[in-house]
Amino acid sequence: MQDWPGLIEAYRSWLPVSDTTPVVTLKEGATPLIPVNSIAERIGRGVKVYVKYDGLNPTGSFKDRGMTMAISKAKEANCEGVICASTGNTSAAAAAYARRAGMRAFVLIPDGYVAQGKLAQALVYGSEVLAIRGNFDRALDIVQEMALKYPVTLVNSVNPYRLQGQKTAAFEIVDALGEAPEWLCIPMGNAGNITAYWMGFQEYKQAGKCQLLPQMMGFQASGSAPLVFNKTVNNPNTIATAIRIGNPVNKEKAIAAKSSSNGAFLDVSDEKIIEAYKLLGREEGIFCEPASAASVAGLLKRASEVPSGATVVCVLTGNGLKDPDCAINNNDATFHADLNPDLTTVARVMGF
Amino acid sequence: MQDWPGLIEAYRSWLPVSDTTPVVTLKEGATPLIPVNSIAERIGRGVKVYVKYDGLNPTGSFKDRGMTMAISKAKEANCEGVICASTGNTSAAAAAYARRAGMRAFVLIPDGYVAQGKLAQALVYGSEVLAIRGNFDRALDIVQEMALKYPVTLVNSVNPYRLQGQKTAAFEIVDALGEAPEWLCIPMGNAGNITAYWMGFQEYKQAGKCQLLPQMMGFQASGSAPLVFNKTVNNPNTIATAIRIGNPVNKEKAIAAKSSSNGAFLDVSDEKIIEAYKLLGREEGIFCEPASAASVAGLLKRASEVPSGATVVCVLTGNGLKDPDCAINNNDATFHADLNPDLTTVARVMGF
Repeated sequence: MQDWPGLIEAYRSWLPVSDTTPVVTLKEGATPLIPVNSIAERIGRGVKVYVKYDGLNPTGSFKDRGMTMAISKAKEANCEGVICASTGNTSAAAAAYARRAGMRAFVLIPDGYVAQGKLAQALVYGSEVLAIRGNFDRALDIVQEMALKYPVTLVNSVNPYRLQGQKTAAFEIVDALGEAPEWLCIPMGNAGNITAYWMGFQEYKQAGKCQLLPQMMGFQASGSAPLVFNKTVNNPNTIATAIRIGNPVNKEKAIAAKSSSNGAFLDVSDEKIIEAYKLLGREEGIFCEPASAASVAGLLKRASEVPSGATVVCVLTGNGLKDPDCAINNNDATFHADLNPDLTTVARVMGF
Repeated sequence: MQDWPGLIEAYRSWLPVSDTTPVVTLKEGATPLIPVNSIAERIGRGVKVYVKYDGLNPTGSFKDRGMTMAISKAKEANCEGVICASTGNTSAAAAAYARRAGMRAFVLIPDGYVAQGKLAQALVYGSEVLAIRGNFDRALDIVQEMALKYPVTLVNSVNPYRLQGQKTAAFEIVDALGEAPEWLCIPMGNAGNITAYWMGFQEYKQAGKCQLLPQMMGFQASGSAPLVFNKTVNNPNTIATAIRIGNPVNKEKAIAAKSSSNGAFLDVSDEKIIEAYKLLGREEGIFCEPASAASVAGLLKRASEVPSGATVVCVLTGNGLKDPDCAINNNDATFHADLNPDLTTVARVMGF
């Protein structure tokens, strides 16, 4: 078996890098495409379902795909540091890649608002955290201004290189299946990922790497569904924190992807998201972030509309280990406490 | 790029499976081999250092390599369930693969001893947890007796198929480097992994896949070092919980691996383990379990003995996300709280 060199080397000719771009990589990408038969059986009619488990990227989310590009280009531009306003997956990926490149990593957050647990990764990766009085929007304003006036690169969602890296997930799916799937189910927060996948599928089709283009099915949590209901949500609210975004940066591009692909946007309730989350854990052995499960929840909600015999890929954007509390509070395990330490008791409890 | 089929399919001819073995897989294996230049620079003399980041397996540790084998063989034997006594990586992997195979997963633990957080994965994978009055040794006794008398398969370290799966990590290293490394640095708990790696390197050499055999360098935490000091430790104590084992199951095999490979066993203090842990995060963007960092801490302690120009591989056995508290309590990040939300303040704190 050949060693995977990371996604920039693997897909170099498809990406805006040159021979002089310093490639900053943790060997991200090449994440598994796993068949999930318990989901397929619930749909029936010969439908095949896979999950693209992007939580197995180096920092535990799909953000690594974009960050290997963003940081390599920042390094190429001789930037001294990168900056972002984020409490979650973006700050983790930014810190890991920036520090690996020998650059400083600044993370702005609203003071007193963010639990340390959310920041565990940014901390261990040696970032410099600045907690400002004010809300998240103010933090976003400041990082944008900082990037304009000082030699730091902004790596929030507006960074154009991130989508370039993220599109490689679509390449990998086609490379694995030998064709694009009929449906691509994906959670939407800032809607960068659906935009990037659509870009990837289109480029591959244009190059003759696949004949089909998937219908892009984007899903949001009901309490945070600006794209579904076509209006900004001022106080987005959902257990799926990674997609709790009321005013997506990539709104127009996502709507274009939906229209050109004959896709659809749909909301799913937190209850259904958690149902899908538990189902993936309990029946498939796959542990994802709650936000990731929105793709499977959405597929199950739209089950009757999947063409018979179609191949469907659901994108699982993040690793469940990022949110252990959610697992502890939402699972179908049984727990028998205070048992006598003898064979008879144990056998009885086990049903033998 | 070709799709990775999971380690059983990838290395089928090297493993005790037949065409009728039902392969239970989450596409484990093919984990990245990442150059860590900050470690290499500390050693100098042209030494090359890589980490084998096995924390990117599907449940976040190297245990998945063994579990895909153990569960596939249990399924082949028509077992109804699997059982283990474990509070950590083993129970997570056992539960994920067993449930994926449609089997029950029983996890025995000492009552009142285990924090729920440690069990988050076993819970989300839908295991059946039995907490008995008594200690961990009693739990181990009971699972062994249960496996003898009832149709459940024991998947603790004594299960022979686990080492078979684990040896594939050695194959992957040789496949990636084109040769075996001169040194293989690895943390030791039950010492199954060092045994499995040695088995893998030997088999590959015998088949002509490599010319070298590495020196096997096994590392334990000073407070839990039965193999280093050659005596059972009754109350092992270390921050590296995944290798906190006082009486290793694979003691004899590990000693044989050390002797035949002209290797060594050494202990490293918790302080040095945490130093290596922080170094990997801060300078390489790699987040591992504390136990994993013992391999790097050991290498740095023995730095002067590495042959000039040698290639060294350090095994990182688990994902740092499994122990977020350790990251929050041990990191070199800077944290600036309560800042005025204006550009001047932020720029000043950043040093511009």
